[in-house]
Amino acid sequence: MAFKTDIQIAREASKRPIQEIGEKLGISSADLLPYGHDKAKVSQQFINSVQDRKDGKLILVTAINPTPAGEGKTTTTVGLGDGLNRIGKNAAVCIREASLGPNFGMKGGAAGGGYAQIVPMEEMNLHFTGDFHAITSAHSLLSAMIDNHIYWGNSLEIDTRRVVWRRVVDMNDRALRQITTSLGGVANGFPREAGFDITVASEVMAILCLAKNLEDLQTRLGDMIVAYRRDKSPVFARDIKAHGAMTVLLKDAMQPNIVQTLENNPAFVHGGPFANIAHGCNSVIATTTALKLADYVVTEAGFGADLGAEKFLNIKCRKAGLAPSAVVVVATVRAMKMNGGVAKADLGGENVDAVKNGCANLGRHIENMKSFGVPVVVAINHFVTDTDAEVQAVKDYVASQGSEAVLSRHWELGSEGSADLATKVVETIEANESNFAPIYPDDMGLADKINTIATKIYRADSAQMDQKILNQLKEWEDQGYGNLPVCMAKTQYSFTTDPNERGAPTGFDIPVREVRLSAGAGFVVAICGEIMTMPGLPRVPSAESIGLNDAGEVEGLF
Amino acid sequence: MAFKTDIQIAREASKRPIQEIGEKLGISSADLLPYGHDKAKVSQQFINSVQDRKDGKLILVTAINPTPAGEGKTTTTVGLGDGLNRIGKNAAVCIREASLGPNFGMKGGAAGGGYAQIVPMEEMNLHFTGDFHAITSAHSLLSAMIDNHIYWGNSLEIDTRRVVWRRVVDMNDRALRQITTSLGGVANGFPREAGFDITVASEVMAILCLAKNLEDLQTRLGDMIVAYRRDKSPVFARDIKAHGAMTVLLKDAMQPNIVQTLENNPAFVHGGPFANIAHGCNSVIATTTALKLADYVVTEAGFGADLGAEKFLNIKCRKAGLAPSAVVVVATVRAMKMNGGVAKADLGGENVDAVKNGCANLGRHIENMKSFGVPVVVAINHFVTDTDAEVQAVKDYVASQGSEAVLSRHWELGSEGSADLATKVVETIEANESNFAPIYPDDMGLADKINTIATKIYRADSAQMDQKILNQLKEWEDQGYGNLPVCMAKTQYSFTTDPNERGAPTGFDIPVREVRLSAGAGFVVAICGEIMTMPGLPRVPSAESIGLNDAGEVEGLF
Repeated sequence: MAFKTDIQIAREASKRPIQEIGEKLGISSADLLPYGHDKAKVSQQFINSVQDRKDGKLILVTAINPTPAGEGKTTTTVGLGDGLNRIGKNAAVCIREASLGPNFGMKGGAAGGGYAQIVPMEEMNLHFTGDFHAITSAHSLLSAMIDNHIYWGNSLEIDTRRVVWRRVVDMNDRALRQITTSLGGVANGFPREAGFDITVASEVMAILCLAKNLEDLQTRLGDMIVAYRRDKSPVFARDIKAHGAMTVLLKDAMQPNIVQTLENNPAFVHGGPFANIAHGCNSVIATTTALKLADYVVTEAGFGADLGAEKFLNIKCRKAGLAPSAVVVVATVRAMKMNGGVAKADLGGENVDAVKNGCANLGRHIENMKSFGVPVVVAINHFVTDTDAEVQAVKDYVASQGSEAVLSRHWELGSEGSADLATKVVETIEANESNFAPIYPDDMGLADKINTIATKIYRADSAQMDQKILNQLKEWEDQGYGNLPVCMAKTQYSFTTDPNERGAPTGFDIPVREVRLSAGAGFVVAICGEIMTMPGLPRVPSAESIGLNDAGEVEGLF
Repeated sequence: MAFKTDIQIAREASKRPIQEIGEKLGISSADLLPYGHDKAKVSQQFINSVQDRKDGKLILVTAINPTPAGEGKTTTTVGLGDGLNRIGKNAAVCIREASLGPNFGMKGGAAGGGYAQIVPMEEMNLHFTGDFHAITSAHSLLSAMIDNHIYWGNSLEIDTRRVVWRRVVDMNDRALRQITTSLGGVANGFPREAGFDITVASEVMAILCLAKNLEDLQTRLGDMIVAYRRDKSPVFARDIKAHGAMTVLLKDAMQPNIVQTLENNPAFVHGGPFANIAHGCNSVIATTTALKLADYVVTEAGFGADLGAEKFLNIKCRKAGLAPSAVVVVATVRAMKMNGGVAKADLGGENVDAVKNGCANLGRHIENMKSFGVPVVVAINHFVTDTDAEVQAVKDYVASQGSEAVLSRHWELGSEGSADLATKVVETIEANESNFAPIYPDDMGLADKINTIATKIYRADSAQMDQKILNQLKEWEDQGYGNLPVCMAKTQYSFTTDPNERGAPTGFDIPVREVRLSAGAGFVVAICGEIMTMPGLPRVPSAESIGLNDAGEVEGLF
């Protein structure tokens, strides 16, 4: 049996005009700002007008530690959204926007897969509604204004060796990672070392995704630390007087985008911060707006539950006052096998023992999610090669952990395949009150917060921080940043800092290599391992085979 | 009497939904790709479907040499378009898009002024429909792919000292003019000198504005020279295999934008190449599309007629097969006085003699335009301080040159004030057959082409080119580029290379400092003087006072 590719399915989609999709959520066409016929932004005025409404139920989709076998977290998010609509609920999904640059290195990704996708696929992998370009512009303006301030006399007394605000571009360009700027003489300024990150790594992105409204956005932009003086006192973006103009550049980008699933259900696709040095979730404004318009909102977080869901719950939910009603943990039989020690090449053929061995990884994630006080459902994202006995092994294991696992076949069948999952999620929400709370309080010390995540979520013996890092954290506490949450930057492939340690390892430490303060976004980043904020292109970039075909369609992007 | 500012007038505009504006040109809403409610792109499918239609009449609006007094070329373009519609003609205007970056240095500009403007003003000075971001992305992709090619082994044998493809950003950032890239060790590539220009200076911009369709766009992108080998043989963008993916990034940007005048008449606003190192006109595709949809199309070219109109006629019209039916030369009484030797501070009060003295500049432009075989009308863009005697002096002078000058009061009165000008332009077109021809043939040598423009348009004694430049031109001729037109990069303030030489100077030479080949855009650039391709920000950038007011409106941008 031959399956259609994601792009084939996406191109065959019967898209409805975006105004019809908006109507499903009660948004009139006057309140929708269309971008072509299949994309739109929801106007700020409309968002303001619905603030007094009651919120719908929020469902977080997360996953076991990712493996090369693929878990299908976004696919399940979309499938669950369609499934909820199929069983008569008014549901919307909220996911992140894709970064442009990486598509020209490796092939771009669909939003979802099979018959659980969001369209239009091409536009979502290209410029979409321009949000990331707006972020690049706002970031670049601040960069230019900092060097311009130094050029015209540096009255803020910035130490040019301590400019921490880098530049960004939405392209994989390793040549820009480390550069020397302002060469060429007096007219070009004071030479200094600098560098570029990819746009999604910008603190502006994290702020756009955490800001409640334009006023909050502007305040946070002003709060960003861009440099230090010789006495190490911080210089803020507001000192550079860039935050007003940056807000102007971001005013359209702050309005969430809506598109549609293959089944013509509404999908919010907005924001896309890095999931390592930032929190990796779609925007707060998209999620809070969706909750005012739909009875059920299905969203996801980056990476596995140890990183993505932890940040979603401890950072995004804490800061935005959100409380999820349920968490869905996505697992696949194939990924269970890999967590059970099987190599990707050996995944063919039934192997129930390997599945059972890998379930410990899933079990720890279930336990972690429950520790936030939220009921858990496991979704087994069905692959056509899975055998009944393998699926049953996962179900049995999950039942032994006091939860329930549901097989979901949305990839193959769309909402017909996910209706069971949707029904189970609704039942779980109706039967269990969520008592959500972050796992550490605001007033815990920063080092203790890091240690809490390392020991309670990763199950490490401890987080290792040397005196220099502890001093830095103490200094930030003294400066008033002690109440911030922490954002862990760690490999997504393992509970440990070693990407090859699958399953549910114990007896390890989490070494914290560096800490950074994102004062505008409002978190302290703890870096545990190598973090790449500017990817490179591979030897043969996918860009070489991207082009338009005779029908004007994009080829080679997927 | 107090006058309203441009932004006040623009905000009071009674904008019609963009679909209604499209209908005026026979574009159905299915063929319009809306960006919000007041901007849209015209779909490529629709453009393809109208190719067999007859063309309307093309009218070029140009001007005397610009002075600090202001000529109002765009204002007159918009006013003439509205005037033509007022007298019952089906007319559209075509102008350029504004560059984002410079708005954060000096205050941004309206498209037109007074009651002859195009709206929405804010969006046109911010992200608009994302065209320039798409150009930045396409340019950046090629930049990244060049260094990536070198990183992975450099099989094309690029001489890293001779990479001529720079990077771009749409921001005034002098610190990026000259940089060293790929520092930091093996993983970041081979260190080399590089630099950034502002996006409008990108050859991609020039190509987008000259390409007839997507196929032509892709061919031209592939034809760009990005580097040279040690043996000085060129390496093309097509060798890097970037042109297909660049075309994908530009496919939406290639569709022209329509917006509206204050009087709800259609305006195409598309493309914006530099007017010095490039040709400074809106896109060919916007102009040719407008000509299929309107009976009269009014467009403009950058700077004064010696630079802007010359390039419009010798480059854009030649390459796109366009033939203007009339040229309107805009003059103002105030600018005539400045060309007559009066300083800006002394412009108050009637001074008929100064007006008469300055008319020689206007006269030379009229003569130049006629040398292309096109009938000329002079528009006196009325300022409220002009006296009747001053206006009459200009009219008398123009009559003595065998043309006619019409006073136009569109700034103050909208189309009511420009109906006379519109009537005169229509009469002129109907009474005079245009016999347009470029002033030099394709097969003239490159040095002779430069000399022809210098002597026939600027009235210099000669263009001075040293042996090195002559050798370079000869080399390009040998390589097959001899049939290209030349693009002059010179000060816009004077016929000479000295910006202070107003009027109609004689007895000077035009020194050519450097020549560059834009092989994809399809012209040879002759640089005569200092050309800045990356502006800086001033001591107090306008960005410092830009922000949103309580009503969510942009303040400080204008």
